[in-house]
Amino acid sequence: MSDHNIDWVDRLKPAAPDGATTITTERSRSNLDVDSLAQHLLGTDFLERQDRILAQIKLDPLFSKDRQANLGRPERYMLGLARSKRMRQMADRYNWSEEDYETAKYLVDDISPYQLHQTMFRQTLLEQTSPEQKKYWMDLHESWTIVGAYAQTELGHGSNVSGIELIARWDPKTKEFILHSPTLTASKWWNGSLGRTATHSIVAAQLLLPDVVDGKGETVYKSYGPHMFVTRVRDPETHKPLPGIVIGDIGPKYGYASMDNAYMLFNNFRIPHNAMLSRYSRVDPETGKYYKPENKAVLYGSMTHARKRITMAARLALARAVTVAVRYCSIRRQFHDKEARSPGGYETAVLDYPTVQIRLLPLLATSYALHYTGERMGQIYEATRSNVDGGDLSSLIDLHSLSSGLKSLVSELAANGIETCRRSMGGHGYGGGSGLVQLNADYLAKPTVEGDNWMITQQMARYLIKKVTLISCSTTNFVPSNRTESVLHEYYMTKSTDPKPLDIFSDDGNIVKAFERRAAYLSFEAHHAHHVQKRSWKSLLIQMHQLSHAQSEMILVHNFFDSLTADTTLPPATRNILWLNFRLFALCTTGKSTRDFARASAVLETQLDAIPDTIVNIMQEMRPHAVRLVDAWSIPDYLLDSALGRSDGRVYEDLFNRAHRLNPLNTLTFNPDYRTDELVKGSNDGGAILSKL
Amino acid sequence: MSDHNIDWVDRLKPAAPDGATTITTERSRSNLDVDSLAQHLLGTDFLERQDRILAQIKLDPLFSKDRQANLGRPERYMLGLARSKRMRQMADRYNWSEEDYETAKYLVDDISPYQLHQTMFRQTLLEQTSPEQKKYWMDLHESWTIVGAYAQTELGHGSNVSGIELIARWDPKTKEFILHSPTLTASKWWNGSLGRTATHSIVAAQLLLPDVVDGKGETVYKSYGPHMFVTRVRDPETHKPLPGIVIGDIGPKYGYASMDNAYMLFNNFRIPHNAMLSRYSRVDPETGKYYKPENKAVLYGSMTHARKRITMAARLALARAVTVAVRYCSIRRQFHDKEARSPGGYETAVLDYPTVQIRLLPLLATSYALHYTGERMGQIYEATRSNVDGGDLSSLIDLHSLSSGLKSLVSELAANGIETCRRSMGGHGYGGGSGLVQLNADYLAKPTVEGDNWMITQQMARYLIKKVTLISCSTTNFVPSNRTESVLHEYYMTKSTDPKPLDIFSDDGNIVKAFERRAAYLSFEAHHAHHVQKRSWKSLLIQMHQLSHAQSEMILVHNFFDSLTADTTLPPATRNILWLNFRLFALCTTGKSTRDFARASAVLETQLDAIPDTIVNIMQEMRPHAVRLVDAWSIPDYLLDSALGRSDGRVYEDLFNRAHRLNPLNTLTFNPDYRTDELVKGSNDGGAILSKL
Repeated sequence: MSDHNIDWVDRLKPAAPDGATTITTERSRSNLDVDSLAQHLLGTDFLERQDRILAQIKLDPLFSKDRQANLGRPERYMLGLARSKRMRQMADRYNWSEEDYETAKYLVDDISPYQLHQTMFRQTLLEQTSPEQKKYWMDLHESWTIVGAYAQTELGHGSNVSGIELIARWDPKTKEFILHSPTLTASKWWNGSLGRTATHSIVAAQLLLPDVVDGKGETVYKSYGPHMFVTRVRDPETHKPLPGIVIGDIGPKYGYASMDNAYMLFNNFRIPHNAMLSRYSRVDPETGKYYKPENKAVLYGSMTHARKRITMAARLALARAVTVAVRYCSIRRQFHDKEARSPGGYETAVLDYPTVQIRLLPLLATSYALHYTGERMGQIYEATRSNVDGGDLSSLIDLHSLSSGLKSLVSELAANGIETCRRSMGGHGYGGGSGLVQLNADYLAKPTVEGDNWMITQQMARYLIKKVTLISCSTTNFVPSNRTESVLHEYYMTKSTDPKPLDIFSDDGNIVKAFERRAAYLSFEAHHAHHVQKRSWKSLLIQMHQLSHAQSEMILVHNFFDSLTADTTLPPATRNILWLNFRLFALCTTGKSTRDFARASAVLETQLDAIPDTIVNIMQEMRPHAVRLVDAWSIPDYLLDSALGRSDGRVYEDLFNRAHRLNPLNTLTFNPDYRTDELVKGSNDGGAILSKL
Repeated sequence: MSDHNIDWVDRLKPAAPDGATTITTERSRSNLDVDSLAQHLLGTDFLERQDRILAQIKLDPLFSKDRQANLGRPERYMLGLARSKRMRQMADRYNWSEEDYETAKYLVDDISPYQLHQTMFRQTLLEQTSPEQKKYWMDLHESWTIVGAYAQTELGHGSNVSGIELIARWDPKTKEFILHSPTLTASKWWNGSLGRTATHSIVAAQLLLPDVVDGKGETVYKSYGPHMFVTRVRDPETHKPLPGIVIGDIGPKYGYASMDNAYMLFNNFRIPHNAMLSRYSRVDPETGKYYKPENKAVLYGSMTHARKRITMAARLALARAVTVAVRYCSIRRQFHDKEARSPGGYETAVLDYPTVQIRLLPLLATSYALHYTGERMGQIYEATRSNVDGGDLSSLIDLHSLSSGLKSLVSELAANGIETCRRSMGGHGYGGGSGLVQLNADYLAKPTVEGDNWMITQQMARYLIKKVTLISCSTTNFVPSNRTESVLHEYYMTKSTDPKPLDIFSDDGNIVKAFERRAAYLSFEAHHAHHVQKRSWKSLLIQMHQLSHAQSEMILVHNFFDSLTADTTLPPATRNILWLNFRLFALCTTGKSTRDFARASAVLETQLDAIPDTIVNIMQEMRPHAVRLVDAWSIPDYLLDSALGRSDGRVYEDLFNRAHRLNPLNTLTFNPDYRTDELVKGSNDGGAILSKL
């Protein structure tokens, strides 16, 4: 609202052609079958569920996003708490399935303060409890009688879990464990849902058991490494921390305003024997003897579980930003083309500029590339889980390496891509009407959480180097057990014969081969540096990171290729447009590392030089289909929460509505005279703001 | 504050070695002379002023940054208003110079709602008013009797100023201009200081003068393009918009929460004849005749002025992020090195990992590279201004191209660099204690404001192609008039002789030559594509963008080289460390575009292959000096507002303090039971949050 409500403003329309007209024209220029593609990408179940849950959500004003960006941090937490309670109430009322509930969270897009209760707390209880513990805890969990969190990371220790400082010392007299934080850096830190919400928490601590008695009669303890415990942390009546525990929220962050990340310290806080999660390892309460887990690999479980959906989530986060940017850039016009008059004599749509295309269309292609690998990863996870349940843990290691490498690449592509989309939209991209402010702030957590992107690539590199060692040392008849081994083995068998660079322009299959050859080349090179030249692992870390990315890029390319090759459901015209996306993704990725592809003798030199022009040509072919390609992702306007990315193209009407009718700052009239401290006219409120500092 | 104040928490210390000890050790390992380098970079005046103003600022609790990140948008605007009033009051009381005032704003780091009053409003009045207008307005401006803004950009038009839709139609009867917004997209938009603060504004509008009378007796108007007007927009008593004007704030954005960016619409709003700024062009009030400006170049003035300080500002924005990241990464430890035991048996400082170095040390070097070019740009601006004042406008075009190309590259390096620093810090980098949340959100505006980074590079490219045309077409004895022409001419004279690739490892001068050769090569290539192959300008836009960046990189490299070569003031050991920075910056930049350097025959192929290893070696040499190199930027802890980047290294103590003692969310106790809508324990406040949505 403005200072005066003047109805001449309400009658104004955008200059012609307006966004609605433009986007309708855009859609009419493409023969891509949006419905078929949406089914292909998301499936009927997903689309039906999204519609159904969206309709339910929209009925409740608590889920309105109109003014939430104006709230301060404490209010954002409160809003998140209120929304999460309401969603659980709705789940009970409407009898939501777990997927229904997940869909609601996806659409509301406000991280829930109960998030860890529903993920890591639950997962850890499921995986690490003894049968008796599971029986006791799972009912309390399911009914939200308790609210749980997961406290592993500390102020001083994140990635290196074995370095955590919190101790859990066994007291054989009382048969209790004593949780104690010996230093400030031992404080638990970042633990979601724990800062203000949780009543209970899983707690990771170094297990200490009495070992010997020293000369002065003092007990000497021996450490058995980090173990998991579960304990109540807040009083059931007052919700204040229990005596001996200090907990709080760590304060504002880049994003996730509605999440209460915690700090937590213990002062000789006693918990009973059965607080230690004892499915795999346990302490005998009578003898104080420690029983260790039979197989280390079981501990990969939760971590790998957390990474399970990262590629699928990344594709939708990126698709969301691309949807906004492609739609807006097809509507936004700037400058007349002096060389070629545009239709209708209008200024040129900015998406027609190659400098805008080169930023957006490769990201559009990337959203598709991520999709097929995300889908494939889902299959691999299911297969691995059934192997593990059947007692075969071998493929868990493969999966862990694969998921580490992909997590690093994929979260980087999406995080950087969101910002690239934002910048492609010029000035309006910086405004709240872009709908990308919160998406960007939230998503920026991904490159560093659940394994720092620059650290976990070591898993993938180490895996590849082991495979090279295996292949180089095998004397005869090596039989590859998976695709990575096949590729490395084939490279090993042919590398002495100086294989010819590939023609990647006339055969899409050769694109996949070129990516395989380059990844194999870098694997052997890294193996040589470490094992033959004996260079230290640390000195090769940058190279290892690049190797992991090269391997992950190859995986994205081959899954994209395989999926399109195998597809029989899409109309041919639509599938052909996806092949353009495949080529664009692959060539742009090649173009960023031409020296590697050249050194690996993977691509013809003349083609490496021709990549920039080829990319421009492919983009021109893709251009008419851009809006329909983003439409297929079926992201509802409610989730986009974007004036620029509205499906109906009413960009300027929506921007103006947000400013003129929804902005709470415009309800106040200020006093700009610097000689007075009065801020709001007639309020004499000079010192009020001070009380908040 | 936590729920209980338990003093055992206050006695806890971080695990050894604490940050203070570590950073002291860090500093003792380097012989870099911080004081000399700080003088060299910033000068005595700057350093003295910073200390003096900082001491004054810190006395006033209004400038405390302790809790500001918790405030909502409307409160952030109010805080900004209060702070700006206070600063102006202090300027009066302490008799601050303009530089003192700028320093205060730099330290408080909260964009002022009076910002446009002090910059574009003032600058435009100074440059575009007639002598009588100047006399009338400048006093009102200086005393803040009025508060002015600058309204050019519209909802539908940003970069293309000539496309703005607001009209100013001359009414010869009343001798007034009538401001009118014919459409919604004609709304002024983004205009700083205007949404809630300003009483007046400069307004850009299409000047329409009566031309002929048509057959029906209606006056037909002719457009004379965009012109500047100045008008009161709000009532002096009520501060409400005047009748016929609608103004408001456009709502929350990525950053700049304390700035009131505006929308503004006019409904046949009449302003007097003398509202049109008439230094260069004017309308005769009696005859209605239009007098046009003598020289178009005068209009570049304000725009170039706005870009004047962008490189110097970028270097400090980047230096701030690098300061935080380098200090924190030298203190943060993670994992034991299994191949080489670290001193004291402690875990490895993360800055010792090449994967952290490769992200931070090139950015540290970049902050220095930006410095020398920023300094050089200042000299060029002064020279150009004195030429222009003397009537010679020729160098203004050179300067405009140069500043366009640099603005694009430099703001991109800084914006991306800040985020790279943030990610290098792992989990804690995502927290508010990083001190980078607001810096990042604010700085992200730079790549798209004051000329979109992907558009303005055309200026530089066009300039270079014109020079190539000039040189190619000159028959004999071409005499270069500046360095760019010399480089292009030299390249032109030798390119047919196939010049040998340069050895850039053994001669720093050859690094500069290699950058020159690559930029010249790309200039001739672009010229060939456009003028010989006749490819359209639009189809070459990506290539032109890359050409501009290549030229700008060359400028950064040669100014860095020239400045170090000419320096006689720094202690030799310190200067040698800067040479390491030079090489690191140049080689990392080369490494990103190896294919260009190879195609231009600028660098030996073997050296292109050896760049990654060479970079690792240089970083190892630089590593011990990293903390002192950032110390030299002399950024006060108050400005950093960062637990991670504190100069005394007390990282963990500060993180804990912010969480445990300063976080307002921890003053509330919540009710997590989903069966009740109560949020804060005992408050029964279930619906309160709804009223804000």
